[in-house]
Amino acid sequence: MEELIRYFDKKDNVSLGKLLKEVENQTPLSYDILKYSSSRKGKAHIIGITGPPGSGKSTLVGKLCNKLAAQGLMIGVVCVDPTSPYTKGALLGDRIRMQGIAKLPNVFIKSLATRGNLGGLAASTADIVQVLDAYDKDVILIETVGVGQIEFDVLEVSDTVLLVNVPGLGDSLQTLKAGIMEIADIYVINQADRPGADESVKDLNLMVRESGKTDWSPPILKTVATQEEGIEELINQIYTHRSYLQNSGLWKEKRQTRNITRLNSMIQSLLSQKVDDHINTEESLQQKIEDVRNGKRDPYTISHDIVNSLVANKNTYQYGG
Amino acid sequence: MEELIRYFDKKDNVSLGKLLKEVENQTPLSYDILKYSSSRKGKAHIIGITGPPGSGKSTLVGKLCNKLAAQGLMIGVVCVDPTSPYTKGALLGDRIRMQGIAKLPNVFIKSLATRGNLGGLAASTADIVQVLDAYDKDVILIETVGVGQIEFDVLEVSDTVLLVNVPGLGDSLQTLKAGIMEIADIYVINQADRPGADESVKDLNLMVRESGKTDWSPPILKTVATQEEGIEELINQIYTHRSYLQNSGLWKEKRQTRNITRLNSMIQSLLSQKVDDHINTEESLQQKIEDVRNGKRDPYTISHDIVNSLVANKNTYQYGG
Repeated sequence: MEELIRYFDKKDNVSLGKLLKEVENQTPLSYDILKYSSSRKGKAHIIGITGPPGSGKSTLVGKLCNKLAAQGLMIGVVCVDPTSPYTKGALLGDRIRMQGIAKLPNVFIKSLATRGNLGGLAASTADIVQVLDAYDKDVILIETVGVGQIEFDVLEVSDTVLLVNVPGLGDSLQTLKAGIMEIADIYVINQADRPGADESVKDLNLMVRESGKTDWSPPILKTVATQEEGIEELINQIYTHRSYLQNSGLWKEKRQTRNITRLNSMIQSLLSQKVDDHINTEESLQQKIEDVRNGKRDPYTISHDIVNSLVANKNTYQYGG
Repeated sequence: MEELIRYFDKKDNVSLGKLLKEVENQTPLSYDILKYSSSRKGKAHIIGITGPPGSGKSTLVGKLCNKLAAQGLMIGVVCVDPTSPYTKGALLGDRIRMQGIAKLPNVFIKSLATRGNLGGLAASTADIVQVLDAYDKDVILIETVGVGQIEFDVLEVSDTVLLVNVPGLGDSLQTLKAGIMEIADIYVINQADRPGADESVKDLNLMVRESGKTDWSPPILKTVATQEEGIEELINQIYTHRSYLQNSGLWKEKRQTRNITRLNSMIQSLLSQKVDDHINTEESLQQKIEDVRNGKRDPYTISHDIVNSLVANKNTYQYGG
């Protein structure tokens, strides 16, 4: 544990990379890393960036990094790629690295890919972000590809969500509506030098007004990331949103909610371990489960049997309190 | 319970509708309905149909229903709409009803919408499908909009998955790859009278061959649902896939896996109930949770406290076996 704290105190990218590797691979050490970082987090502004493939998210993230780094901020970038092994394109992290920002000493980039296991991705992202936060990053950028539910889960860690689109939303507007639309805090029309940019802004404006968000009305910005156009204004709006969160109490509230979310997921994972252990030591249950598998018994009755045999009666609690 | 069995024996659409309503609303009766139907399911061929908005899924489902109904089969249709309340378009179920198939006596249509709660949708779908299966349906068609992870979960109930697209996949091919692609058993290029149909077939062919599926090589079919073109061939391929599942043992295996999935989700839901009850009766835990929320204690330690105080030691099990 002391060695661990030394790693945290070093504040260099090599130590950070080692800590994140432990967490990503869920080594025995990762438990201590998470426990320790949990007490030191809460300062970073966490910004989620999402949008369909080809909208220029990586370029935008690169330019944001450059500007924020020039302001002297410590920046962490987490690239979450929830795509299957079928995708042969470059990983998001690679695309961002190509922008040259990896050379900046105050920027740290971490790639996360699923390789088929979507389930754990949101949890991994939350863990990585927590460690970066505890490692004194001022800003953490999470870039993720827009493929549905998993994206929601990943973005739940964010304070500020940017939704990046390109002009001529057209058909995809319907899909957007169906999913990610309502979680965006700032809309970005990137590649705004292409035709149809103003129309897209108008479409989005209408949708934002219809959605009837009250306290925060998401701004709609035009950028041309490749030309660094609109990046300053985007950063201004990100800061405005941060102030809004802090003044409204949402900043604190979001952090509190995340603590409880983490507690619940830990409880769930500990309980399923207990269930596994329990079943492994009770042969009669193994037979019952086999019967459920073969349709000889119903899962409704047997689930009660298992849970009741695992959880003792109220008055037999051993360590309550 | 006897009245319930009478409802099951009636085999009319009104009784079925009432049973499904109970299950959908998770009334106290739903537990008995699920328990009873669990012992009578396993016969129906469950077919999932997915694809992007505008690909003509509803029309295709309508035509499939017509043909299958004409063969004298009993058909259940479940329309799952995992879109947010922002979407103002017609519900999937309404669009299918427009096709006039609701008038057929051997077709039963059930719509499921989320209204914001994505989490429970997959579970609801599985429940509804189970009751339809127990209600002697020969074929159950599940139509769902393609919006990511939730779609995976919904389609997990299916024996045969149809992925519907339109000619000129172009950019969306990348998104497809990233998600739903590998779970399709049959690819359909609908609106195949539009330009680019053959090219799309070629693209898909290449992708299928690259993916290296072994036992079952997913066929790629062209349809024009509005003109009823290609529907016969599609049904033939659906039957071929069914034979494949039955001969390979996958038919049985899928049903067994679903039984275990259901058992696991029941165990999980019973345990979270136990956790809630436990916390409600232990004031000291409530204080600890409050401390986690405020960042005064870490969720890692407290989750262990909660789980250990809930689950007694091995040697104190009360009903094991």
